[in-house]
Amino acid sequence: MSAQETKVSAGALLRFSAACFEKLGVTPRDAQITAENLLFANLRGVDSHGVIRLKIYTERLRAGGFKANVRPRIVSEEASCALLDAGNGLGQVAGVEAMKLAIAKAGQTGAALVGLKNSNHFGAAAFYAIQAVESGMIGFAATNAGASMAPTGGREGRLGNNPVAIAVPAGKYPPLVLDMATGAVAWGKIFLAQQKGEKIPASWALDKNGVPTDDPNAAADRGLIQPFGGYKGYGLSLFIDILTGVLVGGGFSTHVKSLYQKLESPSDVAQTFAAIKIDSLMLHAEFCRRVEEIIDLMHACPRAPGSDRIYVPGEIEHETEQRRRSEGIPINATLREELIALARDLGVPSLF
Amino acid sequence: MSAQETKVSAGALLRFSAACFEKLGVTPRDAQITAENLLFANLRGVDSHGVIRLKIYTERLRAGGFKANVRPRIVSEEASCALLDAGNGLGQVAGVEAMKLAIAKAGQTGAALVGLKNSNHFGAAAFYAIQAVESGMIGFAATNAGASMAPTGGREGRLGNNPVAIAVPAGKYPPLVLDMATGAVAWGKIFLAQQKGEKIPASWALDKNGVPTDDPNAAADRGLIQPFGGYKGYGLSLFIDILTGVLVGGGFSTHVKSLYQKLESPSDVAQTFAAIKIDSLMLHAEFCRRVEEIIDLMHACPRAPGSDRIYVPGEIEHETEQRRRSEGIPINATLREELIALARDLGVPSLF
Repeated sequence: MSAQETKVSAGALLRFSAACFEKLGVTPRDAQITAENLLFANLRGVDSHGVIRLKIYTERLRAGGFKANVRPRIVSEEASCALLDAGNGLGQVAGVEAMKLAIAKAGQTGAALVGLKNSNHFGAAAFYAIQAVESGMIGFAATNAGASMAPTGGREGRLGNNPVAIAVPAGKYPPLVLDMATGAVAWGKIFLAQQKGEKIPASWALDKNGVPTDDPNAAADRGLIQPFGGYKGYGLSLFIDILTGVLVGGGFSTHVKSLYQKLESPSDVAQTFAAIKIDSLMLHAEFCRRVEEIIDLMHACPRAPGSDRIYVPGEIEHETEQRRRSEGIPINATLREELIALARDLGVPSLF
Repeated sequence: MSAQETKVSAGALLRFSAACFEKLGVTPRDAQITAENLLFANLRGVDSHGVIRLKIYTERLRAGGFKANVRPRIVSEEASCALLDAGNGLGQVAGVEAMKLAIAKAGQTGAALVGLKNSNHFGAAAFYAIQAVESGMIGFAATNAGASMAPTGGREGRLGNNPVAIAVPAGKYPPLVLDMATGAVAWGKIFLAQQKGEKIPASWALDKNGVPTDDPNAAADRGLIQPFGGYKGYGLSLFIDILTGVLVGGGFSTHVKSLYQKLESPSDVAQTFAAIKIDSLMLHAEFCRRVEEIIDLMHACPRAPGSDRIYVPGEIEHETEQRRRSEGIPINATLREELIALARDLGVPSLF
């Protein structure tokens, strides 16, 4: 695998993505924001949300399923709450704006929530939650997505693999960041097991008849991902859909379209952002000291047999970022070809 | 089992619990609130949080680990945020007060969060989340608890089986209520497997050495419950502890005491409550119509083999409540003896 990998610097990848978006009619500022969101995911090792999405974003911008130059518009507003309409623009551009508004409102009142409708795929949710940390706050971001999971006991897609992210400042440590989807596993891991001819845990997927399967081929043949942790993951996914799509007046359940279908139509994705001003409850420095202590308590826990180290949420991603900032971001052969073709297609200088 | 069960009416159980609390020096109003919280759990089939707790509450009130007559005090306050100090009073009394404040603030600003420190065991978290629904809002309640779970890769208790509850109105349907702990299972189910001589799933518990076990005896011998869904459940539990104990200035991780130890000392439990005013984002009636639709979409999902019915969160509990309101609440032989002894001890008329 590594023989087929090429490494690209963070700066080069950022400039390339931004240049692609600019060629598609996105303003330099919005192109930069969207490129930063993709780079953020690649740096943190969440490659499923990185530049692997450049091709589909390009296709949607061309087909009209993403609008290149619309500004999110405030639909309604109170002291600690607002509803924005993304106008089917880039999810990243509207998402950053919505989180900014949540932060500004929480700065005035202590806590705030902002909903975003007519939005699109917004990349890694942690990107927005961390915005709040940079303002001395706790941040939340959640999105719904095309229906790909069944409710417990069902066998058809009714809920997205909806993620939620929460981030808090952690003093001398990098921010604690939980960014989790509600599915048991990403499809990528099932495809990998298929390639390797390995079995998968029976808790990962259902076959096309709704029966749990340990055969990745049966899962890939019109099967579904299972919610993580059984009915609790189903409940979380449903409530994320209610707190995003249902509450903000966007699409929900089967009304949300997949990023990869009907490239000319809106996906009808919805997001919700929230921020808590730490200073409303305790001094920021004291909060950070307490978060440092709880991190120390986790790290110092006596280890189970076979465990080398205990991590806190976001720690692996932070270390991956440090490494990739110095060593570069690995791009596999398939993605490399895709980015070369995209560069040629858009008339942007190739990375390779 | 059913031969050993006695059924008691909701009204009788409520009056009995309230009478016990009054004998212990709790005001009639606070005794009523606390009794209602225990009854709520019994009615909904969550018997682990019902009158089975009367005995330990009595012991703590007598020993000084719960204060009978303190009012929660506002420590700091902003438009959408407040910090309350429960003064080591009953968790239910302070919890209801904190949620009321969150609802009042959300009514003014759209969204609000209230933290509660120096609190105690507050029973079923759903009780508070549903308070918001009764005011036309979305409600959240979370608490930390004595450390009983290890972080992923650890083998000592560092986090409570911390629950979070979310409730939303659902129009013609009963409110949707998610009330989930972050552990894979309640200890009661492990004890039941012990009694029956059955194995348990390897994802439920660790033995005393931190190794996953399918032997309920090994789990019960100084073992630990595992977080649900692996590292995601660990992450959720850690973040609930941060959003409750760490953020509000209460105990967290190993600093929170078990309800059943040191009966004379504060447990140092912390809770956080939040409310979102639905009308800030859309008309309440329209929200309810959309929630009805998402419920219908879940119910109508084609079923997997072996599945008789698809439920939404809170539906089983609601149906149990309907049944128990008409048929009475089952009290098993052990609990019956305990309540008889308690009645005698406190000089309250026995239920039996």
